[in-house]
Amino acid sequence: MRVLVPDLPAFRALSEPGDLFLPGVELEFYRKGAVPEGAFDGVVLWLANAETRARLLAVPGLKWLLTLTAGIDHVQGKVPPGVALYNAHRLHDRAVAAHVVAGMLAAARGLHRFRDAQARGEWRTAAPPDSGLLTLDGQKVALWGYGHIGKLVEGMLAPFGARVYGLTSRTEPDLVDYRVSEADWVVLLLPSTERTRGLIDARRLGTFKRGAWLSNQGRGDLVVTADLLAALDSGQLGGAVLDVTDPEPLPAGHPLWTRENVLLTPHVASTTTDLLERGAAYARSVMLDLSQHREPEGRVDPQDLY
Amino acid sequence: MRVLVPDLPAFRALSEPGDLFLPGVELEFYRKGAVPEGAFDGVVLWLANAETRARLLAVPGLKWLLTLTAGIDHVQGKVPPGVALYNAHRLHDRAVAAHVVAGMLAAARGLHRFRDAQARGEWRTAAPPDSGLLTLDGQKVALWGYGHIGKLVEGMLAPFGARVYGLTSRTEPDLVDYRVSEADWVVLLLPSTERTRGLIDARRLGTFKRGAWLSNQGRGDLVVTADLLAALDSGQLGGAVLDVTDPEPLPAGHPLWTRENVLLTPHVASTTTDLLERGAAYARSVMLDLSQHREPEGRVDPQDLY
Repeated sequence: MRVLVPDLPAFRALSEPGDLFLPGVELEFYRKGAVPEGAFDGVVLWLANAETRARLLAVPGLKWLLTLTAGIDHVQGKVPPGVALYNAHRLHDRAVAAHVVAGMLAAARGLHRFRDAQARGEWRTAAPPDSGLLTLDGQKVALWGYGHIGKLVEGMLAPFGARVYGLTSRTEPDLVDYRVSEADWVVLLLPSTERTRGLIDARRLGTFKRGAWLSNQGRGDLVVTADLLAALDSGQLGGAVLDVTDPEPLPAGHPLWTRENVLLTPHVASTTTDLLERGAAYARSVMLDLSQHREPEGRVDPQDLY
Repeated sequence: MRVLVPDLPAFRALSEPGDLFLPGVELEFYRKGAVPEGAFDGVVLWLANAETRARLLAVPGLKWLLTLTAGIDHVQGKVPPGVALYNAHRLHDRAVAAHVVAGMLAAARGLHRFRDAQARGEWRTAAPPDSGLLTLDGQKVALWGYGHIGKLVEGMLAPFGARVYGLTSRTEPDLVDYRVSEADWVVLLLPSTERTRGLIDARRLGTFKRGAWLSNQGRGDLVVTADLLAALDSGQLGGAVLDVTDPEPLPAGHPLWTRENVLLTPHVASTTTDLLERGAAYARSVMLDLSQHREPEGRVDPQDLY
């Protein structure tokens, strides 16, 4: 299989001897204004300008195209007939999913409290019975919003022994109520819409299992902040992990800043610095699938484009 | 299948309608001085005193015994011939494994820095190129010490896309050197022995990939603390996640307390408060396997006892 990939060190590494080497895949490298001649089975499209992109799409013999983006508007209407198109939403969703699980594990293992103790220079021992330390083993997790990110979160939580229940707009309201009322964790992965704004208010928080944790990784206005604070005060909520807030950014002096059992990050769930390396690793897994005649994730129907 | 289990709420829940119900398994409950009459296929042994234990081991029809402990000395020499014995090291190892992964994810997602910013009431935005935020996707992880815990860590890291390499005392020294020099994370899960004390010293730290992170979840004296501090100062080490230290406890005023890129927890990797619930969940998975004629994890050869 011959494939054109971007001329970046992370992709060069895929053709060199070592752990990343792809047997049966011959890589050639393109850069701005320099697209190798000849026929290729596939193209990995990334960071190319319109002119380079047009040349890559005109490569003879092309069977598949992988764009390392979540969106596909830049190739919309330009993919030759019969060429399979794949996107890489998973590459971008993965950071969010990892961030979600990081926050849950940090809370379960008390990392926020130990960080506070570290700031005081205090070796704060924690005895087993009332340590407040958990694993996620056996914990029930309601993932409210269950698309690509939710499914990744589910896969990441599985080895920890968590029991994950995905809730979508098609889930029966009674089942939503039941899952939320049983959950040790309610994780919000929803967009902000007319239907979801203010979803987590005093009424809904009152239906949570006492001491459950809330994780909001969707949008700040899914949660009524005053009601969240009241539920934290009363102990109804065990704690909260928030990457988004309302208001956002959270102003100086806001009461959420000073809660021990609130873990705040400043809307960074999808932020990463290692995108190039991860992009190459993702492209590698797709090429490995294709070279072994497995259908990779991310197939996009070009008919959807119009 | 008829099984005797401890009379605890978490086990009662296994025989009630709901998610945890075990089809085809009939549970009876024992407590101190009260062991139900009749024949049983299996016994889940936990928190029983010597007298109750002796009665449980004499139950007619017994085919298997699951002790929810890691050690088996309390049943040593007392398991009737032909009875399969299982231990539950995984139940206890799992907390440590979850703690290891929690620390790695927290470091990768910058949770320690955001916690510090929270203490200052500061919405510290992080722009993509130099956010310092990573996922574990594509990261190489050298697990130095690769027993039950290491294998659990490997399974937990897999969905994040990390590339895990287990190193044991049987790994060729050259391969150890290579794996360590390539690793983005070096995770110590070793006991303290003559051979391992001081393993991570200035010489070894000098062979790390620049900017790699160290996680020590084994024993404090695996690492030469002065050399660790020097490697942090020089930037050779990107940071460290330490559940154990040398000295331990870390005294007030020790320089490790004040490093931003050191995440400290006070030797709590195996500590949990949810052990009863997790024990019941673990027993459930073993009973599910046995009732479906699958061999569960944790079989211990009684011949090893003598």
